[in-house]
Amino acid sequence: MDNQLRNEIYDQAASWILEAGEYIRENIDAPRSIETKSNPNDLVTEMDQRTEQFFADKIKTTYPEHYLLGEEGFGDELENLDGTIWIVDPIDGTMNFVHQKRNFAISIGIYVDGIGEIGLIYNVMEDTLYSAKRGEGAYKNDVKLPSLNQQRPLNQSILALNTTWMLPENPHIEHQGVHELVKTLRSTRTYGSAALEFAFVAEGILDGYLTMTLMPWDFAGGAILVHEVGGLVTQANKEPLNLLEKSTVLASRTNIHNEIADEYVNLKAKSDRS
Amino acid sequence: MDNQLRNEIYDQAASWILEAGEYIRENIDAPRSIETKSNPNDLVTEMDQRTEQFFADKIKTTYPEHYLLGEEGFGDELENLDGTIWIVDPIDGTMNFVHQKRNFAISIGIYVDGIGEIGLIYNVMEDTLYSAKRGEGAYKNDVKLPSLNQQRPLNQSILALNTTWMLPENPHIEHQGVHELVKTLRSTRTYGSAALEFAFVAEGILDGYLTMTLMPWDFAGGAILVHEVGGLVTQANKEPLNLLEKSTVLASRTNIHNEIADEYVNLKAKSDRS
Repeated sequence: MDNQLRNEIYDQAASWILEAGEYIRENIDAPRSIETKSNPNDLVTEMDQRTEQFFADKIKTTYPEHYLLGEEGFGDELENLDGTIWIVDPIDGTMNFVHQKRNFAISIGIYVDGIGEIGLIYNVMEDTLYSAKRGEGAYKNDVKLPSLNQQRPLNQSILALNTTWMLPENPHIEHQGVHELVKTLRSTRTYGSAALEFAFVAEGILDGYLTMTLMPWDFAGGAILVHEVGGLVTQANKEPLNLLEKSTVLASRTNIHNEIADEYVNLKAKSDRS
Repeated sequence: MDNQLRNEIYDQAASWILEAGEYIRENIDAPRSIETKSNPNDLVTEMDQRTEQFFADKIKTTYPEHYLLGEEGFGDELENLDGTIWIVDPIDGTMNFVHQKRNFAISIGIYVDGIGEIGLIYNVMEDTLYSAKRGEGAYKNDVKLPSLNQQRPLNQSILALNTTWMLPENPHIEHQGVHELVKTLRSTRTYGSAALEFAFVAEGILDGYLTMTLMPWDFAGGAILVHEVGGLVTQANKEPLNLLEKSTVLASRTNIHNEIADEYVNLKAKSDRS
């Protein structure tokens, strides 16, 4: 993608994400209906759907040749990564949106033939925009984020980690390794929004993020951000991410990435999973 | 304590906490030396010490008959709760202060003969002051916080919980119960500041907070806040808090408090603890 076109698409995406966020902020206290999806804790609101519809309309009108991969069903059915694909999570951290009315984000990753070109994560209630273009670094609002400190060892690191992965019966990762990891780390944090956890890794206020069940819209924007500050984002077993599948994710500073993946992550065989 | 005196002390404490916070914000990017205390992850900075010294000087000058119980050693050695005691954590969430330069708080609880009269928690970088006077409710800045929703069941609740308490070898709580609790809850969060976790319970964006090893300055202010919005704060086994000792803490909406304590919390005998 040439720079001029990328800059044009970036400006467009940034203006849309701010517009969508402003609407959410103005309506944050409105009564809302909340549906549950596959299980009672998988929440979705009218606002998720409305926001994805907003992006679907904007993209189809302005860039009819682009594709949209989204959570709420207003996008395209994609079988490969050819062309320009917007991967959008209209509200990442829906549980926070419902319970906290803050700590959620809009996430956009724009990929061309599978290459991440533009990443945007908008912390809506804080009005903070994290953004990156490939090869140009990452920004928090107008401030360029420094490259990640590559020196701090694992025992002085803070990792975003959900308590779920410490349960022996979780179907994705052997809990013993996660327990050893928790004992080795300085501390863990859980914020309830994958997009924000990527943004915090990019910002350097978390040293890494390990999780088991992200959809492409949960990691597409964040992976570009973390990559642009010199971090690594892969599946938890170090395989490359696949933008068309649900995935484990390990995003971290490079100096602890191999150590976490090699010494603490033992994924369960897919056939064992519930 | 009569209302006029309480209001006077409240106004004084609020002005000092804002002044101390402003100094921290102005110096947040200054180079700092970081010491470790009992273990490598127990951090303390010059700013913790300076801030406690600030409160010690102010209190001793203005209220020479009051006592100070603090983390950093500028306070009094107390053997009982007689009199007026300021219980101060100058920086609650020192690890966040060091690693994140946000998500930490100054916490003050003012007790008269063991009764909590004034609670203040100041989210320094956000410039958000949570405050309460006994019998007058709690506030977030100038907005009165509503009484906690007492209806939401445990399986729709979000609890602040550190991953540490899920480790079988933790010396404080049987991990099996914690695992069952995690499976029952809607979700968990970990923010890394006890004071802020209390404030979030008071605000209703968390339904509860369960932890094992808080010092009085970690919970003194927060307990008053949560109490003033109708929540319960006890030791994890439902015994009353002791302001002179390290303690387990369960702070939550009343409708889930007994359920968590009775069905999921099994404390290890003190003699078993490392």
